[in-house]
Formats: sequence, structure tokens, C-alpha cells
Amino acid sequence: MRIPDHIQQTIDAFSRLPGIGPKTASRLTFYLLRQNEELAEDLSKALLDLSEKTAYCKTCFNITTKGQEECPVCSDSQRNHRMICVVEEPLDVIALERIGSYQGIYHVLHGVLSPIEGVGPDDIRIKELLDRTEPEEVEEVIVATNPNLEGDATANYIAQRLGGRDEISVTRLARGIPMGGEIEYADQITILRAMEGREKMNK
Amino acid sequence: MRIPDHIQQTIDAFSRLPGIGPKTASRLTFYLLRQNEELAEDLSKALLDLSEKTAYCKTCFNITTKGQEECPVCSDSQRNHRMICVVEEPLDVIALERIGSYQGIYHVLHGVLSPIEGVGPDDIRIKELLDRTEPEEVEEVIVATNPNLEGDATANYIAQRLGGRDEISVTRLARGIPMGGEIEYADQITILRAMEGREKMNK
Repeated sequence: MRIPDHIQQTIDAFSRLPGIGPKTASRLTFYLLRQNEELAEDLSKALLDLSEKTAYCKTCFNITTKGQEECPVCSDSQRNHRMICVVEEPLDVIALERIGSYQGIYHVLHGVLSPIEGVGPDDIRIKELLDRTEPEEVEEVIVATNPNLEGDATANYIAQRLGGRDEISVTRLARGIPMGGEIEYADQITILRAMEGREKMNK
Repeated sequence: MRIPDHIQQTIDAFSRLPGIGPKTASRLTFYLLRQNEELAEDLSKALLDLSEKTAYCKTCFNITTKGQEECPVCSDSQRNHRMICVVEEPLDVIALERIGSYQGIYHVLHGVLSPIEGVGPDDIRIKELLDRTEPEEVEEVIVATNPNLEGDATANYIAQRLGGRDEISVTRLARGIPMGGEIEYADQITILRAMEGREKMNK
């Protein structure tokens, strides 16, 4: 039996999502068939809105709703606009906002430098970061790219380009052993970084 | 920062799918945001079609496309219409069709008997199975419910209700499939062996 076309199309579309293979895609599709139609319709509508209503903040390139020039963080006058945290993706902003204590604003690069994949400085939002990082307006740039090869290279590139602006402090998120982690199972590079970044406990 | 409403709605809708928690839902949503709009639109359209175009075969209750009275199996005159394989869900039909050797037709119950969840014989398509299982038209009923408590109870109930129709052989898939497992996830060879080793349930 051929699966009816409209059902196969749903399975195929689910399969294109990361981490979802053909079997999981089938399972999700038939789960939706078993439910009443509401869930499939809700998800369908949400996805259409996703592609139609999403816009990017003109200042930090975080996601926002079409029609709003700035994202909720940039348009919040309570935040410290002299402190910019540079992240790779919008999802990183959400992770950082979840801790609830960061009071500055963001800059979303939408990628990292990757010579292997042909991603250079002009392919991500580095120029826009440099443009908005004026010494009279910004005190600190916290580079929060992921601690891996590309993230490190991107962080170093940004630090170098901001090097001439002495009034601006360029910092990087501490690398070390995660809370709840165990030294026994940490990889060597992580232990090395944790050792290098060790903090004084007395005075 | 509050996530924009239309994005949160997509995350929430994904979270309602089985096996997808809030973190995976976020990851899928932001993956779609990173892609061009095509994938989100394709999935949106497919899901809308799923709820609008799906119909059920009037004979076997397998899924089919709206406007078609019978499913591709029932409307295929090459198939052996004297042999009915009874399954719980449409996904089971696809799993059985994948082995490629079964030549009969199907009956989809859309559930199993489950006193705990209050599912009785009238809540699933058992009456319709009994109605179409006429001795002059059917030679064999293969009960292919899952080999677990509810599936066994459902199989026994069907065998008992068909008990008076001596001309009809009622068989059950062999327990090549481990107890507690599900047909949906069984590999093809296991399903094939189980089909070959099906056991007679009456006399």
C-alpha cells in the first residue's frame, strides 16, 4: 500500500527537522491523526505565523515580531545599554535570559566564523557589532560564543577588531567544569581551561 | 525577555507531540527560524492537509484520502479479500505492508479493549469487523493486535465473538514479537516470521 500523498508529505516534512528520522516522523504524523484535528491545526497555524511574523531587531538582530523595530530587550529602558553580550544564535539569548540576572543587552551574530564551511566575517553580524560598539556608548562587550573551535576563533576575531577601543572592556564567559559536573569525567581541555581560569578564594 | 508570542506558540505546539519536551521544541522552532521559510511553510501546509484531507476507508477504517471511499488496499482487486488482518492502528498497516508478502486485506480497530481506560467493544471498530466477517466471504481472520495485555484481551474477545463461524479460521500472529513490544517498532524479519508462524485460535 502506498501511504496517501498528503500523509507522506507530512512524514517527509517532519523528517527534515534535526534529530527526527523517518520512523519518528511517521510516529508523530500518526499521533496527530489519532488526536482530534485541533493539534495539527494549531501546529500548522503556529508554523505559518513563524515564517510570516518573525522579524529581526534592527539593533541586536535578536528575533522579534514583525512590525516591531526593536526586540523586547533593546526597547527596555531598564536594561543597561552600555553592556553588550555577543551570542551566536537567538536561542542563546533565551538561555541567558533564563538565569534572570543579566541586566545588559545582546548582539546576535547568527553564526560563527568557520573557514571549513566558508563562513567569513561578512557572513555574520560582526560589522553591525563593530558599528554599534562606540566607546562613548559601550563599557563592556561580553563574548558568549560557544567554547569550541569556531566559537573561540570568532571570539578572538571580535576581541582583535575591538582592540583599538581601550575604553571598552572585552570579556569572555568563564570556561570550566560545569556545576554538577565531575572532574573525573571532564575532558582534558575543560580541566586545562578551569585550571587556567582558577579564581582566588581568599581576599 | 519574553519570547515573541508567535514563536512561543510554535514551541508550545511542538511540546504537545509525544517524545518532544520543551527543550527539543525550542530547538526545532529555532532550527526552523534559521532555515529559510520554506520548511516551516511546507510543514504548515502538510499539517493543514493532514487534518483536512484524511478520511477513513468505509470498509476497513484504514486511512485514505478524502473523496475516496475505500483505501488503496481494499480497492485493489489483486488482493485476497477472503483474508482479513485485524490491527490496532493505521501505522500497523504500514508496518505490515512493508514486509511486502501479505496479500490479504485489513481491518483497523482504532484502539484496543482496555477496561482501565474505559475502552469497551463499542468504542473500537469491532462491530464493523463482525459485520463484514461473513462465512461465505471470509476464510481467515488474522488477529494482529500488539502482544501485550490489552492486545491479547482484544484478540481473545474477537476470537470468541467469531467462535460460532466454524468456516472461518481465526489466527493470531506468532509471538516472535517479544511481549511488551509494539508492532510499530518491530523489524521486518520479525514481522515476517510472526506472520508465517501465526497460530489458530479456535479448535
